[in-house]
Amino acid sequence: YKFGPHTIPGSHVFVLSNLCYGFVNLKPVVPGHVLVSTKRVVQRFTDLTPDEVSDLWLLAQRIGKTVEAHYGAQSLTLAIQDGAFAGQTVPHVHIHVLPRKAGDFPRNDQVYDAIDHKAADSGPGEKLDLDKERRVRTHVEMAEEAAELRALLQLNSATATEAP
Amino acid sequence: YKFGPHTIPGSHVFVLSNLCYGFVNLKPVVPGHVLVSTKRVVQRFTDLTPDEVSDLWLLAQRIGKTVEAHYGAQSLTLAIQDGAFAGQTVPHVHIHVLPRKAGDFPRNDQVYDAIDHKAADSGPGEKLDLDKERRVRTHVEMAEEAAELRALLQLNSATATEAP
Repeated sequence: YKFGPHTIPGSHVFVLSNLCYGFVNLKPVVPGHVLVSTKRVVQRFTDLTPDEVSDLWLLAQRIGKTVEAHYGAQSLTLAIQDGAFAGQTVPHVHIHVLPRKAGDFPRNDQVYDAIDHKAADSGPGEKLDLDKERRVRTHVEMAEEAAELRALLQLNSATATEAP
Repeated sequence: YKFGPHTIPGSHVFVLSNLCYGFVNLKPVVPGHVLVSTKRVVQRFTDLTPDEVSDLWLLAQRIGKTVEAHYGAQSLTLAIQDGAFAGQTVPHVHIHVLPRKAGDFPRNDQVYDAIDHKAADSGPGEKLDLDKERRVRTHVEMAEEAAELRALLQLNSATATEAP
């Protein structure tokens, strides 16, 4: 799965839709902070086709419900930094989905500070300052989290299908 | 138009879709900072119907293109504060659409600080600390901006319809 110039391994991807995919984050700023992106590499949200816009946000809604419940949160921050002057660092449309809880950040807006300065470097290529052991551990953690979310989303999807 | 407990006057609304509407902001944090909401009063993004999700974001995309060009910006911030613990103060789903330019905020994330602390009180009912003269002037400014955007969006829509 292409994420701008990066490649996201299948083990980090936890859900697929027709045109989009959800994947775990190298440096989540809160537990359950995940990303949703289009399969097609497009930099700007404004350049997506109508089908991609709908598919992307329906998937984000589904993922949001799941991570909010799973991580014991009561709210969600949903944000797109659409272009470099909005803080986008990976030139590929992606939604940040963050489960939010009371007091998780001293000031509510600091969550965005964290998105800008940490989550931005989600691509594996930008972690050259981490030693090898840490990278391996992180990869395992990420794959475990992805597996957990994959199971939950399949469950939700099955429930939705079975509902009258 | 209902916006949580507030009523948005028609003169502040600049575009309508089937299920959603776009309106100008009492206290924009950057020029062209507008809001997009559902006609139905629903607090959480996660509670919208699939049709509302698609309609809301397709309208936000269309509005984003227009305000980015009109205000001479090069990027967009698109964000939903979905629930009280994500900074939502008006209990009605709304997307913040902000045209972004180089250096518009000293630190990129300060734009969110501004959203939390200023744009939050977008409803007319929360402006009791402003004197009457200022309220009237603000209302006129808002209606003028809405008229400007309304004309632009009709133009864009006409162009789209006429395109081969």
